[in-house]
Amino acid sequence: MNATTLELVLLDISRVIPPIATYFVSVAMGEQVRGLDSQAESRQQLLQDVADFLRRKAEVEQEYSRGLEKLSERFSAKIRGSKEHQNFRKDQNLPSPLNCWYTILNQTRQASRDHGALSEIYTGHLVLRLVHISEDVGRLARKSKEMEQQMQDELLKLNLAFVYLQAMKSYQTYRIDCLNAEAKLREAERQEEKRSGGKHSDLSGSPGGAGLDKTPRRTSLRKVERLLEKRQSKFLESKLKCAKARNDYLLNLHTANSAMSNYYVRDVADLLDCFDLGFHLSLGKVLRTYLAAESRAQASWQQGLCAIEGAVDALDPLGDKSRMMEANPAAYCPPLSFDYQPHEGDEVSEVRAEGPLRNELVSRFQHIQSRLNSITLETDEVNKTLKATLQSLIDLLTAEEPEALDAFQGCQSTESLKSTGSDAGGKQALAKRRANQQDTESFYIMVES
Amino acid sequence: MNATTLELVLLDISRVIPPIATYFVSVAMGEQVRGLDSQAESRQQLLQDVADFLRRKAEVEQEYSRGLEKLSERFSAKIRGSKEHQNFRKDQNLPSPLNCWYTILNQTRQASRDHGALSEIYTGHLVLRLVHISEDVGRLARKSKEMEQQMQDELLKLNLAFVYLQAMKSYQTYRIDCLNAEAKLREAERQEEKRSGGKHSDLSGSPGGAGLDKTPRRTSLRKVERLLEKRQSKFLESKLKCAKARNDYLLNLHTANSAMSNYYVRDVADLLDCFDLGFHLSLGKVLRTYLAAESRAQASWQQGLCAIEGAVDALDPLGDKSRMMEANPAAYCPPLSFDYQPHEGDEVSEVRAEGPLRNELVSRFQHIQSRLNSITLETDEVNKTLKATLQSLIDLLTAEEPEALDAFQGCQSTESLKSTGSDAGGKQALAKRRANQQDTESFYIMVES
Repeated sequence: MNATTLELVLLDISRVIPPIATYFVSVAMGEQVRGLDSQAESRQQLLQDVADFLRRKAEVEQEYSRGLEKLSERFSAKIRGSKEHQNFRKDQNLPSPLNCWYTILNQTRQASRDHGALSEIYTGHLVLRLVHISEDVGRLARKSKEMEQQMQDELLKLNLAFVYLQAMKSYQTYRIDCLNAEAKLREAERQEEKRSGGKHSDLSGSPGGAGLDKTPRRTSLRKVERLLEKRQSKFLESKLKCAKARNDYLLNLHTANSAMSNYYVRDVADLLDCFDLGFHLSLGKVLRTYLAAESRAQASWQQGLCAIEGAVDALDPLGDKSRMMEANPAAYCPPLSFDYQPHEGDEVSEVRAEGPLRNELVSRFQHIQSRLNSITLETDEVNKTLKATLQSLIDLLTAEEPEALDAFQGCQSTESLKSTGSDAGGKQALAKRRANQQDTESFYIMVES
Repeated sequence: MNATTLELVLLDISRVIPPIATYFVSVAMGEQVRGLDSQAESRQQLLQDVADFLRRKAEVEQEYSRGLEKLSERFSAKIRGSKEHQNFRKDQNLPSPLNCWYTILNQTRQASRDHGALSEIYTGHLVLRLVHISEDVGRLARKSKEMEQQMQDELLKLNLAFVYLQAMKSYQTYRIDCLNAEAKLREAERQEEKRSGGKHSDLSGSPGGAGLDKTPRRTSLRKVERLLEKRQSKFLESKLKCAKARNDYLLNLHTANSAMSNYYVRDVADLLDCFDLGFHLSLGKVLRTYLAAESRAQASWQQGLCAIEGAVDALDPLGDKSRMMEANPAAYCPPLSFDYQPHEGDEVSEVRAEGPLRNELVSRFQHIQSRLNSITLETDEVNKTLKATLQSLIDLLTAEEPEALDAFQGCQSTESLKSTGSDAGGKQALAKRRANQQDTESFYIMVES
């Protein structure tokens, strides 16, 4: 409440001094009209801002869409032009890393289309709808103001304060008349009492039924009786008039109060409803369309990321190796083995250990066997080392890199200094991991060869 | 298989003519080395392309982020500067449409931060990792090629074809010797048979045990015996040599075949594994970081859209109306009602219907009652019309607009002509709906006032 203390005092006085109340009511009515105006204005400003926002966001989305399109087109064209791709297209047997790469390009192309669609929906449908709503707000505000003015005029035409004041004045006048008439009646009664003195009980017993009194006294008595009668009827008459005026006053009071309360409690609310008519509904619908469009693009992104995740999950070194070997039989197909060519009619086709040859072969076999045993032992040892080295290499390669997504933390926290510090730490850790990895790799290859 | 028919024929011949096989093997080995080279090259090309892609995408994301930031900053600054906002900030009692608007701006600001973070992660972490992987591929390719060369050299040093040919030739030579020796032995046996004629049984019975024969016959007999003996031992000797040569030939054959198959089946695969070492793992890790970053931005978008949806769901015309009325008590607080002011000592404060006043009041009451009845009836009718009109207005305002999201369909379907047609149809439908809406609104307000 913005009222000062003076205004509060005046408001309180206005309960008993109607013209002041009327002043406040007419001030409030002016406020109401201005309120509608300013509400309509701020709504139109909001709609204008949102439309402006959408127009500019459409430009940003369009630019983004174009950037993504150029990006994916650049690399797709390169792929289409490459000999490698043409080979793969035929057998659809892409190596898994290439498949990841193509899936990423596909997702980028789809994102370009989606953001282009957003741009189109903003500038096309949504901005148009917002312009319509703004027109609606303006029209409804004008109509509501007209209706409000009309209602206020009707209310002021009733001139409630004046009528109330008239009724009160007339009640007061009649009430004073009535009180005067009563006073005069009482005065007459008192005089009559004085005169009758001790015969009070007799007189009062039956004032009109004493035909045996003396004439002067009887004349005076009749005069007093007539006066009393006259004053009594005057009093009754003015009492009735006063009651009627009081009734009028009370009914007018209630009428004025009901008219005011009707206006404030019902009409003003109805007017505001009329002003509001459909605003939230229409705005909500535009915003829901905005949401639906953004959600589509967002869901499409999610879907694209799922496809990329599928391609990454399907990274398959063994499969790629065998596909590569199958695709290059000239290099990787083992040559046909040498055949045994028996000399004309020689029916023996296997090693024979007859007579003196036997001992020679047995000793050769034993020599080979013992060499094989020692080599197998050595190989087992080497294999163990190889396995362990490979595992630590894999561990190094798959080690968590918590700093990789720091940029996201950075944009939420305000401590940018701290993040820079951890960034340097991250780089050191990375360099250390990398040196480690190369050492392990060298060792692995040395053992392997 | 790229082999021509001639090559196929040669390959088949190579099974029996080792030098041709050796030619094919050395061609294949050259192919293998070239294969490693070209695989390393295409992997490095892929890594280079992906890194290039990420650098350019980082620019696109950065630009998008800046666009969104400028956009949200422009409108946020306008809001901060507005008087309205400062009023609302105090009581935190935003009208629900403004709340929607602020939530949209917040989401835009968050999206700007998220895409900025993407850009940072691409150019920082991911590109660096890709450069590392490319270095790894180069180093491993070099080491694998060295190892491959070494293995091939060792294999060729064995000179399998030459050794095989030598062994075969020596087997053939000894076999011919053996056959000759056998032929000579059989010839001697045949001569011996002719000479002994009918005494064949006697002679054959015990050629060395006849001490009673004549001298010239005995001398001739001893000669034949010696020749036979000599040829027999020569035959046995050459047979043994032949068997030994055959054994050598067979063993060399198996050695050559095993060496070849070992190289092709085990060593080549091991070499390729060595060349592959960690490539899929490291690439997968980079791609998973890419995915994690994009998924974060995507999830943040989803979250922002949920917040906007919450704000749209909370659009509340009645709440806004009462908040607005509470915030403007000077305009909307009903004035204090007029009080009854009894005149000095008048204790009556309600309408009295005594005597003649009663009839008058009763007739007045009856008149008002009958007017009220007729007005109530009329109002009920008007209310019904109002309700129905309001409902159809709401129906018009909330009618589905299937064409709103056409832009998304458009980017998936190829029939752009059809979509243009439905676009024009959509505009007509929109204009019709809009005319309908305004008619209904006018009728509603006419009935209402």
